[in-house]
Amino acid sequence: MKRTGTLAPSGRFMPMFAPSRPQDRPVFDASFQASFVELLAWRRDVRRFRRDEIPEALLGSLLDLTALAPSVGNCQPTRWVRVDDPGRRTAITANFETANKAALGTYDGERAQTYARLKLEGLREAPVHLAVFCDEGTPQGHGLGVLTMPQTRRYSAVCALHTFWLAARTHGLGVGWVSILDPASIAATLDIPADWSFIAYLCVGWPQEEHLAPELEREGWQARTAHSLLRR
Amino acid sequence: MKRTGTLAPSGRFMPMFAPSRPQDRPVFDASFQASFVELLAWRRDVRRFRRDEIPEALLGSLLDLTALAPSVGNCQPTRWVRVDDPGRRTAITANFETANKAALGTYDGERAQTYARLKLEGLREAPVHLAVFCDEGTPQGHGLGVLTMPQTRRYSAVCALHTFWLAARTHGLGVGWVSILDPASIAATLDIPADWSFIAYLCVGWPQEEHLAPELEREGWQARTAHSLLRR
Repeated sequence: MKRTGTLAPSGRFMPMFAPSRPQDRPVFDASFQASFVELLAWRRDVRRFRRDEIPEALLGSLLDLTALAPSVGNCQPTRWVRVDDPGRRTAITANFETANKAALGTYDGERAQTYARLKLEGLREAPVHLAVFCDEGTPQGHGLGVLTMPQTRRYSAVCALHTFWLAARTHGLGVGWVSILDPASIAATLDIPADWSFIAYLCVGWPQEEHLAPELEREGWQARTAHSLLRR
Repeated sequence: MKRTGTLAPSGRFMPMFAPSRPQDRPVFDASFQASFVELLAWRRDVRRFRRDEIPEALLGSLLDLTALAPSVGNCQPTRWVRVDDPGRRTAITANFETANKAALGTYDGERAQTYARLKLEGLREAPVHLAVFCDEGTPQGHGLGVLTMPQTRRYSAVCALHTFWLAARTHGLGVGWVSILDPASIAATLDIPADWSFIAYLCVGWPQEEHLAPELEREGWQARTAHSLLRR
């Protein structure tokens, strides 16, 4: 695992490492730009995992990199919770099953049949489970940028998980984001401080298969479309 | 601008381009992994822009790439609004100034002095302004994944803007996220549909200076810290 000078060999992020004067940034050449587009194109929401473990050093390095994600006021509000306890994993799987059954009940006919066929999580197979929270009460950042838009703290946590996702993908790992969950039950199951908001539940592991097209597109649920742009 | 086969030469995203069978994904080698870490490390929240224009083709390509960002149920709820009208830009700058003055009023003593010194936006200099919204009422995705967590639609828009930010950075462009704004006034200024939520206001342009350390760290507001991890 290569690291920039901003990460210490211990894996701790070293904020004082960065000089305060302007510098020459690295030039990202056409080859890197093209590979970065490939990375975006091959990022998938993975639900079919092999059961092989993830090396701890790799997982630690990926979490280290999330300290480089943008955060409002530099408040770094993301709280990662790694869920290993089998009882807690079972409770979260049951949480999903209840929420998923309720969701299925909102569809009729052919759409309901398609929904029932979709595999929407890899909770039983994924070797690593990461719950992502936002610490709404963090003093870090001294409140900068959140007076009118406190939700920007939560959006910062989303940038951190998206950073993790892309970095994991550069190593061939897959991430699956599960949102078919009751957030209040997740917080209770994981015994989380009251002022942490639940953002996402991530299954992490090695994908069984690689696909360029998302599963929801392959199964006829929803095709991808172009970006939307208005002019004002 | 290199493109993968998933983007048509017209710049439109071609969802049917991707084959439905499993494939060999590209291998991201150690050199790419290291450059990706550099990209994360050198991404900055830029507030000091040169006034040079951004080539339209480059801007279009970057927006195209946001169609590759993860979105719940593949609902792609991100709505980009490019703000060129001088009157609207002036209104948004005034919006910032009002919110920023109110924010300054919440600090005392040395911290207030530091806050007053910070440059927290590049609204006057940035050649491109992009407001980012989430279409809360989009039928796309057929409601998959949002019954218990409708906020995941907004989190999808955040992934899209973070994708734009990183892709822009691979071309040397800088992005500055302004959140010191009254969201209701933004929607009124830009004449936005009622069911679009305001997510972020982005200034985009070529940075005047390159820094490895965030401005908030250099100015002594808030240093970066390591990631936070709990075990459960």
